[in-house]
Parts: sequence; structure tokens; C-alpha cells
Amino acid sequence: MKLSPDWVVGFVDGEGCFHISILRHPEMEMGYQVLPEFTVVQHERDIQVLYALKSFFGCGVVRRNHGDRWAYRVRKLSCLERICEFFTRHPLKTKKQVEFVRFRRVVQMMKERRHLTPEGFREIVEIARKMNTGRREALLQMEGTEGLCEDMVHPRTERPG
Amino acid sequence: MKLSPDWVVGFVDGEGCFHISILRHPEMEMGYQVLPEFTVVQHERDIQVLYALKSFFGCGVVRRNHGDRWAYRVRKLSCLERICEFFTRHPLKTKKQVEFVRFRRVVQMMKERRHLTPEGFREIVEIARKMNTGRREALLQMEGTEGLCEDMVHPRTERPG
Repeated sequence: MKLSPDWVVGFVDGEGCFHISILRHPEMEMGYQVLPEFTVVQHERDIQVLYALKSFFGCGVVRRNHGDRWAYRVRKLSCLERICEFFTRHPLKTKKQVEFVRFRRVVQMMKERRHLTPEGFREIVEIARKMNTGRREALLQMEGTEGLCEDMVHPRTERPG
Repeated sequence: MKLSPDWVVGFVDGEGCFHISILRHPEMEMGYQVLPEFTVVQHERDIQVLYALKSFFGCGVVRRNHGDRWAYRVRKLSCLERICEFFTRHPLKTKKQVEFVRFRRVVQMMKERRHLTPEGFREIVEIARKMNTGRREALLQMEGTEGLCEDMVHPRTERPG
């Protein structure tokens, strides 16, 4: 299945999720790990669309999310940069664009290793707080959060992949 | 906001809904009314995308669905024919394509007034039964149904618009 850029933008406008988790992680310098994640969740009947997205972006993984739901998931920073470049060239049309711009800022900061500085980390927490309005309280405790990504399971113990 | 055909296909692959309601209607010859409907539901923050779809297809209405959810909704047969022509030229990529093909068959039958014949009506009931797996039991009673269209409210008393 071959996807066109415009189709990908339209589908992600509907089904995509840009998400920042801030997870407790005693071994990290800040005591927390910043985990940006791009996901598209579908019923298993449309798993072939998830693989087409993986092929389109040339990175990421397709994994069972929960039950009969599967996810195309990108966590690797180099791949997230590629995703951000794509959606910079091909802007989203829904208000998800606002989430994307915040997400891209965090990815850029991580590329520059600024999430490892107190100032950078504070800015990222502030950005994540704005993004993840769905479970703000959880975010304030700096646990895993979901925000607008209704379907995604974020297991706390899982490592980035 | 200008939409491209591919963006519309991608967005509808994610967010669109092709739905057949079969409603009790004592004044109709069959005792029931066949009501095909194409809808896209969004949070009110993205109402401008719904108006862009209305403008793209050149017909349909944007209405509050329930709470903070709004819908672009097409019920007029002439406009549904236009929608079906578009998605015939630009096929969906998800399994929603299967729903669409069934939906198009019903629209075509209604155009030919075959829903007013016992054989045609029976075929439409059978198609609608296959489409609306979510609330099959309700369909068997031939009430309003939702199927895969998770967000749409189908008020029984409302007339087609």
C-alpha cells in the first residue's frame, strides 16, 4: 500500500497523536525521563495501514497496543526528527498542529541535550503540561500521561524503542 | 482552508462514517424509512475543518452533534451521490472502504427507487445489518443504529436535511 503525503497528513490529523511523557527514572540526572512519542492507533483490521505508515516514514515499530488495538509508534529521536521534518513541510490542518509545534520544540531541545539541564527540563515540563490536558493531575505528579491520545497505552516500565 | 483530495481521503479514513439507519416510519410504504448518512464528527475546536469539508463537497450541513462535538453531515441523496462519486475516484485505504462500497450500493438503489420495493428493501436491510455490527441487536429491531460510528447521535425524530 503506497501512501501519499497529503493522505498521511489527513489520516494523522484524524488518528495521530503527539505525546510527551515525563516518567520517574532515578538513574537519570533530573530524576525523570522525557519520552516524546508519535503514535497512530488502529483496530487490528487496519494493521496494514500501520505498516504502510512505518514504510512511509522508514522507521518506527508496529506493536499490539491493547486488546484488538495496534499502534504504529515512534520513540527513537532520530526518527522523531524525521517525523517532525515531514509535518513541517506538510502542516496538519486541525488543531493538532498546535500540539505538533510543541512536540517539535521538545524533540529539538532533546536533540540539543537541553532536557538534561534544569532550565531545559523545566521548559519541557511546562510544554508537556500544556499538551496533555486530559490528565493534567497525573502530569503534575510527573507520571505517565495521555492527554488527547485516547487509545494509547503507555507502560511505564517499557524502554524506548 | 483549502483541502486536497488525498487529505480528505486520509481524514475520512480516520474520522468519517458511512451509516445506514432504518427507522420506523408508519407513513412510508414499507413501514420503515431508509436513511443513509455520511458524517465526520469533530471536537468544536476543529469546526473549521468541518466547514472546509462542506465547502470541498459543495453540500451537506455542519451541526452540533452533542456536547462539544460537531458534525459535518450529508443526508440529501443528490449530495450522497456526489460523495460516492468522489470516493469511487479516490478510494479509501482502510477497511472503511468495505463499508463505503456497501453504502454506495444503498445510495444507488435509492436513486433507482428500489428501496420502495419489498425485494430492494430486504436487500438494504441485509446490507445495513452487515455494516452496523456495533449494535446489531438494535438493527434487528430496525431502530436507529450506530455501528462503527462511535460519536454520532442519530435522533430518531429528526427529518433528513
